[in-house]
Amino acid sequence: MRLIGVDLGGTKIQTIALTQAGTPTVKGDGIHDPDDAAAEVAALGELREGYRITASSRRLTPTSGGPDAIADEVADTVRTVGTDADGIGIGFAGLVNSEKGIVSYGTNMADFPNGTPFAKLVSERTGLPTFIDNDVNVAALGEFRLGAGYGATDMMGVWVGTGIGAGIILDGKVRRGPRGYAAEVGHIIVRFGGREPAGGPTGSLEAYAGRASMEKTARAWAAKGKKTKLFAIAEAKGKPRFTSGVFRKAVRKGDKVAKKLMRDNVKALGAGLASMANALDLDMFVVGGGIAESFGDDYVESVADEMRKSLIAPNYVPGVRPAELGDFSGAIGASMVVEERLS
Amino acid sequence: MRLIGVDLGGTKIQTIALTQAGTPTVKGDGIHDPDDAAAEVAALGELREGYRITASSRRLTPTSGGPDAIADEVADTVRTVGTDADGIGIGFAGLVNSEKGIVSYGTNMADFPNGTPFAKLVSERTGLPTFIDNDVNVAALGEFRLGAGYGATDMMGVWVGTGIGAGIILDGKVRRGPRGYAAEVGHIIVRFGGREPAGGPTGSLEAYAGRASMEKTARAWAAKGKKTKLFAIAEAKGKPRFTSGVFRKAVRKGDKVAKKLMRDNVKALGAGLASMANALDLDMFVVGGGIAESFGDDYVESVADEMRKSLIAPNYVPGVRPAELGDFSGAIGASMVVEERLS
Repeated sequence: MRLIGVDLGGTKIQTIALTQAGTPTVKGDGIHDPDDAAAEVAALGELREGYRITASSRRLTPTSGGPDAIADEVADTVRTVGTDADGIGIGFAGLVNSEKGIVSYGTNMADFPNGTPFAKLVSERTGLPTFIDNDVNVAALGEFRLGAGYGATDMMGVWVGTGIGAGIILDGKVRRGPRGYAAEVGHIIVRFGGREPAGGPTGSLEAYAGRASMEKTARAWAAKGKKTKLFAIAEAKGKPRFTSGVFRKAVRKGDKVAKKLMRDNVKALGAGLASMANALDLDMFVVGGGIAESFGDDYVESVADEMRKSLIAPNYVPGVRPAELGDFSGAIGASMVVEERLS
Repeated sequence: MRLIGVDLGGTKIQTIALTQAGTPTVKGDGIHDPDDAAAEVAALGELREGYRITASSRRLTPTSGGPDAIADEVADTVRTVGTDADGIGIGFAGLVNSEKGIVSYGTNMADFPNGTPFAKLVSERTGLPTFIDNDVNVAALGEFRLGAGYGATDMMGVWVGTGIGAGIILDGKVRRGPRGYAAEVGHIIVRFGGREPAGGPTGSLEAYAGRASMEKTARAWAAKGKKTKLFAIAEAKGKPRFTSGVFRKAVRKGDKVAKKLMRDNVKALGAGLASMANALDLDMFVVGGGIAESFGDDYVESVADEMRKSLIAPNYVPGVRPAELGDFSGAIGASMVVEERLS
């Protein structure tokens, strides 16, 4: 099978062609950060089970023109990587009804009405069967099929960045839920009556482990007089926000606020993973996202240590691994949706 | 189909025969609290989809002699309700490998080795195909198929008693997990760094909402000098423990410790249900157990209110209903396992 996977976010469109026995040619086109993308494709090299990325195209997501303009651009990236394919899978940043191929809610793209049959729009333009799913669901599927979750049957992927995204695989299949709302793990409650997040319920996992919520808390503490180097570090880096890199630098410099926020991040995420392990009997957690990448494997290991304190089943310790596919987990996972649907 | 369901706990064995088009005769035998059981069967009357309990037998679980003695007793209750059946389903208090028919861990029955092939022991004695599953899993299945969860596709049943038991139904099927460890929802973390439960991880749902943990906390607070009527009420009722009824009476009398513990119970359970809704996109929660029965429908409604504060998906509010099948949820659900396995 020749598969096309599209990771469609609010900022960029990442499209790849994937084959299991194809030519190893790597061809890049229209890439908005060409060095980066070409290096990533090369670094990935051959994937598991003989899969290979044979072509890649990256564009900026159109910010006007709505679904039609975005579908035009997606179709153009597809033509770039080659339309000789069995189908297209799209991972979309928003709530998706995967069965019906529609975007039901929650995208932050301009002029994008809820209920847009986006799979159809792309299929009409390319002539290829097209499937759509939530971007984080497919990223989890990518890590599960060809990344750090390889070999598991029951897995959760969690991306710790501005917010927390997650995808859950049960018995080898993505848990989407009857409304497509499953895996909103950033909004599980890890400390009822606790901290207020940047968005969503009080005491949620995101309130403690999401970068935007950590920044909100840091600013609130500073306003109350706690001293922190976060402002100076952000300014020196020319960042308007406290990015993952800003937090990392502050922790390295011994900043107490940043250290406390990261300790809570690890405790909250460890508690969250333990909750999901105890509730679902999972084999494996795969942890990615900006914070995980900035703080590295030590972060992932600390989260695993914290999780282990709260497991209860005998002789059962699920694995916790750093994500392997980086920025390509979404596009690779999206291509796996085609395989899932057509087989 | 004629189905036999067995709810096998540390204290009692409850066995029923269930038919979908059978005679409505209710026959009781060997019941250790005959008034109670007969009244319950009568109260249940005709179940949904034309199912009926046609016979019921209740015994005490043997406290010596191990698996063989218990299998003998179970087989005897089966003969009492009638061996003219398609199969036997057993809900067992402990961790069970349902596929293999073995009890893997966690029973508190005397001389009961881990790894006992209990389904086979009962099948040998009765000549009937026999299936075994965790007692709370099957109770959830009972409420899902013929009780308060009827009509849902994705449901969680939660029993709030001495501890917290739960069973999860996804896409109409019991989520057991690859090791049979799923649905240990009493041990999800609702407040990391929080209260110590009677058993299990710090800050767990059970630490706040399980009766034994609430009693532990009340005793600890009293030892530190907090005044409470719980001791006097327990003594007046002749109870060595703070039962659900003791907590209820204390709350009615305005006892501050009991009121605080029940407020935390509701907050913690509401947070726990919201976590599971956000993670799994469920239609329905069914709430039963000693505390839910003592405090009644108001309790269940308060938990639902608390849950609703922490939901995040748009236009999505899962139902929260009191359990309907009472003490028979386990035996009814166990009989449904037979249907699931033989169809």
